[in-house]
Amino acid sequence: MTGRAFFIGRFQPFHRGHLAMVKRILESNREIIVGIGSAQYSHTGENPFTAGERYETIKRALDAEGIHNYDIVPIPDTHVHSVWVSHVTSLVPRFDIVYTNSTLSFAFFGEHNLKGSPPPSWNRQQFPA
Amino acid sequence: MTGRAFFIGRFQPFHRGHLAMVKRILESNREIIVGIGSAQYSHTGENPFTAGERYETIKRALDAEGIHNYDIVPIPDTHVHSVWVSHVTSLVPRFDIVYTNSTLSFAFFGEHNLKGSPPPSWNRQQFPA
Amino acid sequence: MTGRAFFIGRFQPFHRGHLAMVKRILESNREIIVGIGSAQYSHTGENPFTAGERYETIKRALDAEGIHNYDIVPIPDTHVHSVWVSHVTSLVPRFDIVYTNSTLSFAFFGEHNLKGSPPPSWNRQQFPA
Amino acid sequence: MTGRAFFIGRFQPFHRGHLAMVKRILESNREIIVGIGSAQYSHTGENPFTAGERYETIKRALDAEGIHNYDIVPIPDTHVHSVWVSHVTSLVPRFDIVYTNSTLSFAFFGEHNLKGSPPPSWNRQQFPA
Amino acid sequence: MTGRAFFIGRFQPFHRGHLAMVKRILESNREIIVGIGSAQYSHTGENPFTAGERYETIKRALDAEGIHNYDIVPIPDTHVHSVWVSHVTSLVPRFDIVYTNSTLSFAFFGEHNLKGSPPPSWNRQQFPA
Amino acid sequence: MTGRAFFIGRFQPFHRGHLAMVKRILESNREIIVGIGSAQYSHTGENPFTAGERYETIKRALDAEGIHNYDIVPIPDTHVHSVWVSHVTSLVPRFDIVYTNSTLSFAFFGEHNLKGSPPPSWNRQQFPA
Repeated sequence: MTGRAFFIGRFQPFHRGHLAMVKRILESNREIIVGIGSAQYSHTGENPFTAGERYETIKRALDAEGIHNYDIVPIPDTHVHSVWVSHVTSLVPRFDIVYTNSTLSFAFFGEHNLKGSPPPSWNRQQFPA
Repeated sequence: MTGRAFFIGRFQPFHRGHLAMVKRILESNREIIVGIGSAQYSHTGENPFTAGERYETIKRALDAEGIHNYDIVPIPDTHVHSVWVSHVTSLVPRFDIVYTNSTLSFAFFGEHNLKGSPPPSWNRQQFPA
Repeated sequence: MTGRAFFIGRFQPFHRGHLAMVKRILESNREIIVGIGSAQYSHTGENPFTAGERYETIKRALDAEGIHNYDIVPIPDTHVHSVWVSHVTSLVPRFDIVYTNSTLSFAFFGEHNLKGSPPPSWNRQQFPA
Repeated sequence: MTGRAFFIGRFQPFHRGHLAMVKRILESNREIIVGIGSAQYSHTGENPFTAGERYETIKRALDAEGIHNYDIVPIPDTHVHSVWVSHVTSLVPRFDIVYTNSTLSFAFFGEHNLKGSPPPSWNRQQFPA
Repeated sequence: MTGRAFFIGRFQPFHRGHLAMVKRILESNREIIVGIGSAQYSHTGENPFTAGERYETIKRALDAEGIHNYDIVPIPDTHVHSVWVSHVTSLVPRFDIVYTNSTLSFAFFGEHNLKGSPPPSWNRQQFPA
Repeated sequence: MTGRAFFIGRFQPFHRGHLAMVKRILESNREIIVGIGSAQYSHTGENPFTAGERYETIKRALDAEGIHNYDIVPIPDTHVHSVWVSHVTSLVPRFDIVYTNSTLSFAFFGEHNLKGSPPPSWNRQQFPA
C-alpha cells in the first residue's frame, strides 16, 4: 500500500474502463489524484467536453461508487514536452506513483525519477469504447 | 439554501479568514468549489506557493474541520479580462453563485448574468493577515 | 431588417461567393461587420494571405460594389474554443446576428444566446472556387 | 498629399485631442488607418474599454464629423518589441506614413525604414485630458 | 568570401549531410551561425531531441572536424510566419546571407531583403538519411 | 576543476564585472555556458538590447580576451517559475554547476538538485555600473 497515486488522462469521456482502473489503483494506494489532461480544449471531435464537464462526470461516477478518497485537477497542455512534468507537479498535490495509458507521459515521469506504473491490464472486451 | 457556490481567490496562503468564509458560504449553500486563482504562479513574494501546494493546504484545512462537500480547481490567469469568465466556467463544474473578495471578479461575473454575492463580512480584527 | 450583422470567415481569399453573401446579408440587415478569422496566420497553403492583405482585398471589393455600410475586424485564433465567443465579442462592435459557413462557430454563438443564422444558400455552380 | 496614414494609439478613450489629430493627419493624407493598440486588454483602470467598444466609439466620432476615408484595426500587444512592427504590418492594410504619440513606436517603425512623423503639435490647453 | 552566414534547420538529428553543408558554406563565408529551429520541441517522433541535446551534438561534430568559426543559437518556433524573420534576427548576431533547406524560410528572408542562398547541392547518395 | 559551468544573467549590457566573473568561473571550471536571460525582450530601459546584440557583445568581449572555451545560449523568459529550470535545461548543453547573481535563480536550481554556486565575490568599486 503506497500513499497517493496520480492518474492522468484526457477522459473524453470518462468511461467504465477508467472507473475500473481507478478501483484497481485504489487496491494498492491510499488515495488517488485524477489529472484531467488537455484541460483547455473542448468542442471538437477529439476533445468534446470542457474540463469542467469532465470534472463533474468523474466526480459523479466516483461518488456513485462510494469512492471518496480522490482529488481531481484540470491540467492544461503546454505543448512543450520538456517542461510538462514540472508543469504537472506544480499544479497537483504531491504524489508517490504515476498511472497513465500514455507511453509518452510514462517516459516523461521516468526522466524525473518519479516512480511510474504501467496501467494495470484490464479486459478491453469487458469495456468496449 | 442554494446549490453550489464558487469561491475564487489566490489563497497565498489559505488562512483562518478564508476558512471562516468557507464555513459561512456553506451555511447557505449545499456545496462549495474553491477556485485557486493565478494557478501558474509561485516562487515570488506575491505568489509564494504553487497551485499544488495551495491545493494540499486547503484540502487539509477543510478535512481537519470535517468539511467534505467541497471541490478544488486550480485556475491559471489569462491576463485577458474579457475572456476570464468563459475561461473559469470551462474549467470548473457548474455553480449557482460566486463569492469573491475581488471587486473586479465580482463585476466580471455580473456581466455574464452569473449571480454573485459580495463576500459575507467578517471581523478582520479576529483574523489579522 | 435587423441592425448589425457579423459575418465571420477566413477569406483566404475573399471570392465572388463571399461577395454575394455580403450582398444577401445586407438585404435584411442595416450594416455588416466582416470578421477576418485566423488573423495571425499567413504564408501557408491553407492561409496564404496576411490579415492586412485580406482586409485590403475585402475593402476594395466592397467599395467597388458601392457598398459602404461595412466594418472589417481581424480576429486572431485563440485555439481554446471555450473562450472564443468572448474573445470575438471583445474585439468587434456590438452586433445582432451572426453569419458563418462554419458549423462550429455557429454552435459556439448559440451557446451564448447570440442569434445566429445559417448562411443564405447560394448557387455554388455560379461561384466556382 | 501622401497616400495612406497609420495612426496608432490605445484610445482609452478616444477624445477630442485624438479627433483633432485625425483631422490634421487627413489634411496631408488621402486616407487614415486607426490602429487600436493593446486590443486584448479591458476592464482595468489603464485600459477600461474593450477593443470593440473603442472601435465603435471611434467610428461614431468620425462618422459624426462627416469623415469616411478611414479604417479601424484592433492590434493586440505582443510584449515582444522586436517583432512588433512585423506584427502590425501583418494586420493592417499597407500604409505610407506612421503617426503616433509614442516615442517607442516611432523608433520601432524607423528601424524598419517606414517613414514616420511625430504627431502634429496641438494645443493641449484646448483639449484637457 | 562574404562575412557571416546563417544556416537554419531543426537538426533532428544533425547528420553527415548537414556537416557537409556547413563545410561548403564555410568555403565562401568567414563564419557560420547555426540556428536550431523548433527549439522548444522534443520527445516526439518528429522532434526527438531537445535544443540543448542538438546544441551539444552540433558542437561536438564541428569541433571534431577542427571547425571553430561557428556560433549556435536555439530558435523557438513562433507559429506566426509574418513575425518569424524579426523573431530570428532579434535572437542571433547579425549575418550577411541565409542558407536553408526550407523553401518557406527562404521566401521569408527574401521578403525582408535579406540575401538568401539556396543550399549548395550535394550528393544525397553520399549522405543517406 | 569541475566540468562545465552555466552562468545565467540578462547582460543588459555585458560589462567588465561580468567579464571578471567569467574569468573567475573558468579558474575552477573547464568550460562555461553563458545563458542570456529574458532573451525575447529589447527596446526598453530595463532591456535595451536584443538577445542577438547581447550575444555578439559577449562573443566579442570573450574573444578579445583570448577566451574560447565558452558557449552562448539565448533563453526566453517563461514567467512561470515552476517550469523555469526544465525550460533552461532543455535549451542548453548539459552543465555541472550554476553561477548566477539572482537569488531566485539560485533557489530554483537548488530545488532540482543542481549544484549551484553563489557568484564569486568581486570588488564592485573596481567595476562600477
